Amino acid sequence: MASTTTNALLFLACLCLVALFPPTLAQTPLQQPQQPLRVRGQQLQHECDIQQLTAAEPTRRVRAEAGVIEVWESNTEEFRCTGVAAVRYVIEPKGLLLPSYTNAPYVTYVMQGKGIQGVILPGCPETFESPVRGGSEGSKGVERDQYQRVLRVHEGDVIGSLAGGVQWTYNDGDTPIVSITLLDLSNPQNQLDLNFRSFYLAGNPQGQGGQEQGPKEVVGKNIFNGFDDELLADAFNVDTETIRSIKGENDERGSIIRVERDLELLSPEWDDMEEERMRRLNGLEQVLCTISFKQNIDQPSRADVYTEHGGRINTLNSHKLPLLQHLQLSVERGVLYKNAMMTPHWNINAHSIIYITRGTGRIQVARENGLVFDGRVQEGQLLVVPQNFVVLKKAEQEGLEWVSFKTNDNAMISPLAGKLSAIRGMPEEVLMNSYGLSRDEVRRLKYGREQLSLFSPRLD
Amino acid sequence: MASTTTNALLFLACLCLVALFPPTLAQTPLQQPQQPLRVRGQQLQHECDIQQLTAAEPTRRVRAEAGVIEVWESNTEEFRCTGVAAVRYVIEPKGLLLPSYTNAPYVTYVMQGKGIQGVILPGCPETFESPVRGGSEGSKGVERDQYQRVLRVHEGDVIGSLAGGVQWTYNDGDTPIVSITLLDLSNPQNQLDLNFRSFYLAGNPQGQGGQEQGPKEVVGKNIFNGFDDELLADAFNVDTETIRSIKGENDERGSIIRVERDLELLSPEWDDMEEERMRRLNGLEQVLCTISFKQNIDQPSRADVYTEHGGRINTLNSHKLPLLQHLQLSVERGVLYKNAMMTPHWNINAHSIIYITRGTGRIQVARENGLVFDGRVQEGQLLVVPQNFVVLKKAEQEGLEWVSFKTNDNAMISPLAGKLSAIRGMPEEVLMNSYGLSRDEVRRLKYGREQLSLFSPRLD
Amino acid sequence: MASTTTNALLFLACLCLVALFPPTLAQTPLQQPQQPLRVRGQQLQHECDIQQLTAAEPTRRVRAEAGVIEVWESNTEEFRCTGVAAVRYVIEPKGLLLPSYTNAPYVTYVMQGKGIQGVILPGCPETFESPVRGGSEGSKGVERDQYQRVLRVHEGDVIGSLAGGVQWTYNDGDTPIVSITLLDLSNPQNQLDLNFRSFYLAGNPQGQGGQEQGPKEVVGKNIFNGFDDELLADAFNVDTETIRSIKGENDERGSIIRVERDLELLSPEWDDMEEERMRRLNGLEQVLCTISFKQNIDQPSRADVYTEHGGRINTLNSHKLPLLQHLQLSVERGVLYKNAMMTPHWNINAHSIIYITRGTGRIQVARENGLVFDGRVQEGQLLVVPQNFVVLKKAEQEGLEWVSFKTNDNAMISPLAGKLSAIRGMPEEVLMNSYGLSRDEVRRLKYGREQLSLFSPRLD
Repeated sequence: MASTTTNALLFLACLCLVALFPPTLAQTPLQQPQQPLRVRGQQLQHECDIQQLTAAEPTRRVRAEAGVIEVWESNTEEFRCTGVAAVRYVIEPKGLLLPSYTNAPYVTYVMQGKGIQGVILPGCPETFESPVRGGSEGSKGVERDQYQRVLRVHEGDVIGSLAGGVQWTYNDGDTPIVSITLLDLSNPQNQLDLNFRSFYLAGNPQGQGGQEQGPKEVVGKNIFNGFDDELLADAFNVDTETIRSIKGENDERGSIIRVERDLELLSPEWDDMEEERMRRLNGLEQVLCTISFKQNIDQPSRADVYTEHGGRINTLNSHKLPLLQHLQLSVERGVLYKNAMMTPHWNINAHSIIYITRGTGRIQVARENGLVFDGRVQEGQLLVVPQNFVVLKKAEQEGLEWVSFKTNDNAMISPLAGKLSAIRGMPEEVLMNSYGLSRDEVRRLKYGREQLSLFSPRLD
Repeated sequence: MASTTTNALLFLACLCLVALFPPTLAQTPLQQPQQPLRVRGQQLQHECDIQQLTAAEPTRRVRAEAGVIEVWESNTEEFRCTGVAAVRYVIEPKGLLLPSYTNAPYVTYVMQGKGIQGVILPGCPETFESPVRGGSEGSKGVERDQYQRVLRVHEGDVIGSLAGGVQWTYNDGDTPIVSITLLDLSNPQNQLDLNFRSFYLAGNPQGQGGQEQGPKEVVGKNIFNGFDDELLADAFNVDTETIRSIKGENDERGSIIRVERDLELLSPEWDDMEEERMRRLNGLEQVLCTISFKQNIDQPSRADVYTEHGGRINTLNSHKLPLLQHLQLSVERGVLYKNAMMTPHWNINAHSIIYITRGTGRIQVARENGLVFDGRVQEGQLLVVPQNFVVLKKAEQEGLEWVSFKTNDNAMISPLAGKLSAIRGMPEEVLMNSYGLSRDEVRRLKYGREQLSLFSPRLD
Repeated sequence: MASTTTNALLFLACLCLVALFPPTLAQTPLQQPQQPLRVRGQQLQHECDIQQLTAAEPTRRVRAEAGVIEVWESNTEEFRCTGVAAVRYVIEPKGLLLPSYTNAPYVTYVMQGKGIQGVILPGCPETFESPVRGGSEGSKGVERDQYQRVLRVHEGDVIGSLAGGVQWTYNDGDTPIVSITLLDLSNPQNQLDLNFRSFYLAGNPQGQGGQEQGPKEVVGKNIFNGFDDELLADAFNVDTETIRSIKGENDERGSIIRVERDLELLSPEWDDMEEERMRRLNGLEQVLCTISFKQNIDQPSRADVYTEHGGRINTLNSHKLPLLQHLQLSVERGVLYKNAMMTPHWNINAHSIIYITRGTGRIQVARENGLVFDGRVQEGQLLVVPQNFVVLKKAEQEGLEWVSFKTNDNAMISPLAGKLSAIRGMPEEVLMNSYGLSRDEVRRLKYGREQLSLFSPRLD
């Protein structure tokens, strides 16, 4: 029944596209969130008995010609239990992260720099054009190169990516692009296993460093590598020499290469607003091939929570970026000022993977039978907080900033202190009896903090 | 597309709430059923080769000051394979089951007694008020205590609960509240593992009994326990003495405590009808924070199936209680009269966990290659019947009553005998050939029972 | 919110049925796709490290009186990792595949022959009638036998089946029915484990062959077998002699039996068009009990992709057959002409299980670090290609035909060559730098093939 209505709407809205492209190819994963799987009972043998969490910097590092890829090894209990993986990329100016796709959806937060990112979805039209500089050899006059949508990405942007969709990134700025990516391997979009797999369409990810064995997540050959030269030449209708080039067997540059001269893809004016305008013209905000892939979450003016002397929080969920409904992920950007604190809380419907972007602070995390983390955290560290565990963050002298990735497109917290706390939701008499406190003490407990979730330092 | 429409509706309906509470905090898990996960193929190594089911009473028992918590150990094949856990609570008069949340959604059936239950969802307003008796010390005149919704619960009620939502229960009646709870650990709402975890916000679940080690499911410390006193004092803006009280380290009362004087939370007139009326006034049956959490399923006048001399069945699915759509659970209340029988059937889309509430009977259960249960069952026993297994129940002299929890919000059975049976759906000639029976024999087989699913005793 | 709208529609549309049948029984699994489960992190211990795929014929064979059941053993890495099972049935003329249900949804492709298939859903009415030949003994005049819907199935048909729904098949043609069935064990509809289980309602699947142990997937007893004779006699209100017949303990015919005289179920005119007409009359295409279960995908005139000298592809997804939304499966029928080729591509959102129905060809498959299959395939072989792996197919002299089952109701491929290729979606400058090619070489790479996904042989 439900599906009838849904399909009817879907059908109407898709007619135009289907007319252009046949059904096998024209559909993108965006049409409707996948129906997922209910396999029960497979886990008591695999208990997630997390005794200790760690705040760690990446454990493996692969150097490429024009950048670095750093990976958190996923064999720790907390990564294994939450089904996620994390990677930090550094792309130097003129660096090109080669086109690839992965087996899991992911979100990337850009901590520094700016660049251009290409997103290729099968069946979507080549809507972008660049004039070819000076025309190509042997062709008459100026020609235009057509390709699928590219995005401008900046510091503070969150970019969502679908499993199986090809992406490439180019740094056309003056400083390195530094970004952190969280992959959700245990997502309906991934039907195979919880290993993070990158499928490169070019280059030779093993290249740089010769014998050096990088993390298995980011090395390997490119996907053309093993195929028969003749078959590929037949498939592309080119000669086998070209095929040997795309196989990149002897390429020593790794998966981030340096381009010789600037890529002239788009004029710099082609920014977010332009993209927004194009979408409005189309009137097709969420339609296939024009869905929005990114949004900035580092603008103080758009904070969702703000407390004077406390800090601010910007969140990005699927109400703000509908793509996230398909990824089942959301992102929180947090800034705590000097000595301020975030309310102790638990994540009701998500794991939370916290990456510290600046500053230092103290974090405590407890499960149902006691603390599993109590430590000082600093820039560059990542901490996995499983669903339901209670977490408390306090900034030190220079403040504390982070980005948290959450495994639910509308992740929710349940605060223990503050205006929306669970404590405040209970009757005084229940609290008095539960805690053996007087009515006045209970009132102070319920109303001691009037802010939502960020608390300014106490005046003492 | 589907999501566009959905989001639009969602967006409009949420505007008012969002205006009051910022997005991080105002969303409850009720907005839309979670998109779940499709991880494939992880199970052949973990075969559920169930050779024998058991009808067992709880295997572990934890005594608290004012009640008892009994647990079915979840390490048997049938619990492990179906991903559920079961707990029986006895709360004595004036007993308060301390506030806690769990890692799994659950449904509770109240077998006896009456009481008050508090349900706290983050971001929901404190809509209930009690006059504070005599005013508090040092405050002027009568003050009012505000807190989130509380429910009146009675014998026969089913109460649904979301993972991560805080609940507490108080017995304001004269008899113990006896209830049975079924937790669905392998539910989209739980992202971690299949262990049942209770997170207490107060007390010391390990308290009563000193060294005695209760089942790990229900012991542990309260979640404040390991945190730094100073940090918590800072978070709540109270002194560290109060913090030591809420940590309950030396509390010996366990997780059900006896309150000193009656909690005066609500006048007794505040019953189901009142609650119903409030919801109608709001016109917001299913909206955040006002969704209905309970319904009575023990009223003969509301039976879904009734056969004279046979018995009756009341079901509660998500059409009747929309909350169940989020829990993916439903409940069946069954009563078989003396020597009556329920049609042999299989559960098409759910596991069924049968708890015998009264009487005795004989049950047989078969999987694809033979019987896995054949025995007499009696009050207090619980039997797990996996999806697709065939089950047959017959009451003995004093009749047989049960409540079945099913792991689907619209669980369906496929009867083998009776008016809606699979046998009746097949052509006579197919049955004649399949069974080597004459046409007349087949007709008796198809039409021997005209009732739906409850059969009165044969007259012989 | 979403669910409110949905439920409202659902509610209205179901009223009539609910009036006829009580809620426990009247609901079929078709009302809404099940909400699935999100259990995370259970898999790193179970890595799907597929080093080598195989194209194999069935490994086990069970002979019955009037047919053969062949099974691909599901203990290989690729079956285990993708959570599927495959069975090939041969039903001889006058053969009846006995009524049974399974623990997983499945799709069947009929390669040869024609017959009649019964589909029984609990709570659906007996809408079909046959006049009983000559009337039954002792009854007056002509009587009519009533039963649930039966389908005519032909070569080229795809029939979808719900987990837990009873089906039987009868061959009323002159040639054997040969079909291939793909079961999706790791589907939300299956809550137990990844073992394929058949529950027979009649006969004795172990029958034929005495001591011979067939594959556990298809042997076993029938589900009545272990039950107490008296209890069953009571349930059906028949004598125990009839019960012994339905238990089939001494039946030696196995699960496909030969009927003595033709079953006269439907006149041959009762074909697809008739069925279509009935549905139109009802105006209830997708409503409970009248949903369409099959569609033909072997008609060249309805090809979704066609290339002269290349071949054709017919796809069946949930837009064409809404039932597939509930099964989360889709099917592709492919025909490559002599020496033609299908574009190298990966499956974005599904595993693909390819069964070769005719001809021979060469297939190469690569994962992220190299080839995992490189071989010649021929009629009768089955090859599992996991999600994201790159696959290339080329026909040999006599062409290559296949049917591919995909674990997504709207499976998508991402082509590497041709009109909708990922390569074509990238800017020339990105490709020039990635591959070290000149602009002209890149242009040939992008535009060398103008077809969508099927390429005619090169003229050389």
